[in-house]
Amino acid sequence: MHAVDIIREKRDGGALSEEQIAFFIAGVTDATIPDYQASAFLMAVLLRGMTDQETAWLTQAMVRSGDLADLSSIPGIKVDKHSTGGVGDKASLVLAPLAAACGAAVPMMSGRGLGHTGGTVDKLESIPGFRLDLSLDQMRAALGSVGVAMIQQTARIAPADKKLYALRDVTGTVESIPLICGSIMSKKIAEGIGALVLDVKVGRGAFMKTEQDARALASSLVAIGNASGVRTEAFLTAMDAPLGRAVGNANEIVESIETLKGRGPADLEQLSVILAARMLVLARIAPDMKDGEARVRRALESGEGVERFRRMVAQQGGDPRIVDDYGLLPSAPGSHVVTAPRDGYLASLDAFLVGRASMLLGAGREKASDVIDPGVGITVHAKPGDRLAAGDPVLELHFRDERQLADASRMSASAMVFGEAPVRSSPLIIDEIT
Amino acid sequence: MHAVDIIREKRDGGALSEEQIAFFIAGVTDATIPDYQASAFLMAVLLRGMTDQETAWLTQAMVRSGDLADLSSIPGIKVDKHSTGGVGDKASLVLAPLAAACGAAVPMMSGRGLGHTGGTVDKLESIPGFRLDLSLDQMRAALGSVGVAMIQQTARIAPADKKLYALRDVTGTVESIPLICGSIMSKKIAEGIGALVLDVKVGRGAFMKTEQDARALASSLVAIGNASGVRTEAFLTAMDAPLGRAVGNANEIVESIETLKGRGPADLEQLSVILAARMLVLARIAPDMKDGEARVRRALESGEGVERFRRMVAQQGGDPRIVDDYGLLPSAPGSHVVTAPRDGYLASLDAFLVGRASMLLGAGREKASDVIDPGVGITVHAKPGDRLAAGDPVLELHFRDERQLADASRMSASAMVFGEAPVRSSPLIIDEIT
Repeated sequence: MHAVDIIREKRDGGALSEEQIAFFIAGVTDATIPDYQASAFLMAVLLRGMTDQETAWLTQAMVRSGDLADLSSIPGIKVDKHSTGGVGDKASLVLAPLAAACGAAVPMMSGRGLGHTGGTVDKLESIPGFRLDLSLDQMRAALGSVGVAMIQQTARIAPADKKLYALRDVTGTVESIPLICGSIMSKKIAEGIGALVLDVKVGRGAFMKTEQDARALASSLVAIGNASGVRTEAFLTAMDAPLGRAVGNANEIVESIETLKGRGPADLEQLSVILAARMLVLARIAPDMKDGEARVRRALESGEGVERFRRMVAQQGGDPRIVDDYGLLPSAPGSHVVTAPRDGYLASLDAFLVGRASMLLGAGREKASDVIDPGVGITVHAKPGDRLAAGDPVLELHFRDERQLADASRMSASAMVFGEAPVRSSPLIIDEIT
Repeated sequence: MHAVDIIREKRDGGALSEEQIAFFIAGVTDATIPDYQASAFLMAVLLRGMTDQETAWLTQAMVRSGDLADLSSIPGIKVDKHSTGGVGDKASLVLAPLAAACGAAVPMMSGRGLGHTGGTVDKLESIPGFRLDLSLDQMRAALGSVGVAMIQQTARIAPADKKLYALRDVTGTVESIPLICGSIMSKKIAEGIGALVLDVKVGRGAFMKTEQDARALASSLVAIGNASGVRTEAFLTAMDAPLGRAVGNANEIVESIETLKGRGPADLEQLSVILAARMLVLARIAPDMKDGEARVRRALESGEGVERFRRMVAQQGGDPRIVDDYGLLPSAPGSHVVTAPRDGYLASLDAFLVGRASMLLGAGREKASDVIDPGVGITVHAKPGDRLAAGDPVLELHFRDERQLADASRMSASAMVFGEAPVRSSPLIIDEIT
């Protein structure tokens, strides 16, 4: 078998065999297939597509490129949640402790933020001492005692994805549904889970800008998951405006804890409860969504959720006192408020631009090698639909370095659109793909 | 400007600007753009195409990647001919001396054979002492004294093409009309010519298998040439069966000389005369094709053509006695005749399979690093349309190494198709694209 023949077949729109895909991914992993052949292949896949069957084989080959975590010693169906990435999306930090408090085992492997989106790993690293580089044994121990473990991708999980993702980033081959599917699902399957809830974001602040694209991605992810023995369901959720009121890192940890204490923003709480309830259903802990939601609400109201969060922080080496004393978390010295320029209704607040502004402040990274500042970020004081008077605060920028402030402030101001008429709020949860 | 943005724009079907194309080609040439980005770009170009304007900019950027030969000291319009490659196609070796004998200056830069096709450089190297690595000064001297110089591509002519061609070969991105155009025309323009006749082959033994593809390539080549100030015209010619009766290297030199002596096969002589006449017209030596053909015929019949060939060989360090004593050229010790299995008409003789069989014998190369044997090859004893009796010779294989003979013989036999009815011969020259 020759790599060039496989590239040509995909180039001409053919469907590849399991053997061809396995050969190519193995060659990428052990570097017998050079990067220049891999990138020509990636472009051919992006432009010619892949069938669901090919995407499943691609995913399985990427899983086999590394280790498969064995979590069979943990009783029950291990369940995870994955979001395709948004702005202010800290739902994982809320729902995982809630699901664990309800009896689920949640081995959650997360990534770092890139571009305008944040990443769970970055947010958790703002907790002093918190370690995400758990070994498989440490993860099993954490799951056994706390029910939840939050780790970052290790070099031994889906190394083919690591190589391909780095190439895709620099060759214009990120936006391909089969490649996105392979990347997401190979890591999730390798994690050893039995069930997965996907939160596929759609809108200005999401990678998928249209409902049609998001739906196609969700369907493909669900198909791949189920074909690989992982019970998978997806929600399409809106990412036009930031989720919750905090965008950044340490401030998102604070908002997550506040939400677990029952004092969080309505949108974040609603999304977290729905996703956690679906996790309980897929893990066969709750018979249906109604029961699942009731269980999650009880865990929230009883304080069992925030207790799990505290135990998780302690288990992973972090300082559990942060749960009660937010002053132990990093913060930024400066604050600048962007106000409403006129009376009226806030018609929209562009999540992409707010995310970019937060990145400019130092909360995110333009390229993978950038270092982030955990203390900076943005507070969202007004949400779309709010009636405001001129001068009312809309976005508050928490900054360390004044040099970035002007650009971030200008970008924040451009994120706001005002109107005369009241705005009908659009639903947060758009659809469910099962 | 970033390479990845250019790749993305082409990926999405956009037309690139002159600046974008120049940036990308300059980056490929000086290796600031890595191979993996170049190959993703090539695949995007193959699948999305390029406008004629983009292809012209691509060609010009590739010309500028290296030296531009200055032939202004040679009087008149310098004229070359290029064939897209075929089997037994030694027309360059016949027409260039004929055109030179008629007063044209022919600076011909040729390539090596690859796959089933032969290359002029390989054929000329079978002449003892013949050197193709002339410096620009040596080429000018040869043009001044003999009127024709045959050289191989130097490292300083279109180095971007050298890099891109090597990548295309291993990334499944050879078969793209804009990329083929850029590759051919950048070298021809850099050669310093003012006029160019193209022989675009179509059929089983050509890269373009259909007339539609060949026509599209020819139109694009003609457009690029004229847009770059080179008066360019193209012929579409048939390449279903080998051209002439010799396929190989030294044996093709012999057949070229025989043709210059007026004893060559009709198809090779006809094609060479027509192409040379068109060169005279484009170089403004002949007012029209009728006059051009008459001039070329006179050069052929008077022996001036073969005399030019002899002088060219001497000028470039070769042994001119080979023109009269073919025994000074390499040959193969073994001979094996493939015969007609039955009485009937030879309906077709597949040039691709004959070319592959010749390659198996050692006359061609599978990959660029293979070394060829100048003495081996195939003699075509019967041409399509001939009536044969069972046992009549069709193909004679001249071999050195018996190990390859069985495969080459089997492939040669499979190239022949016999029929009951007489075959209407199809035209050699299909069309002219001006």
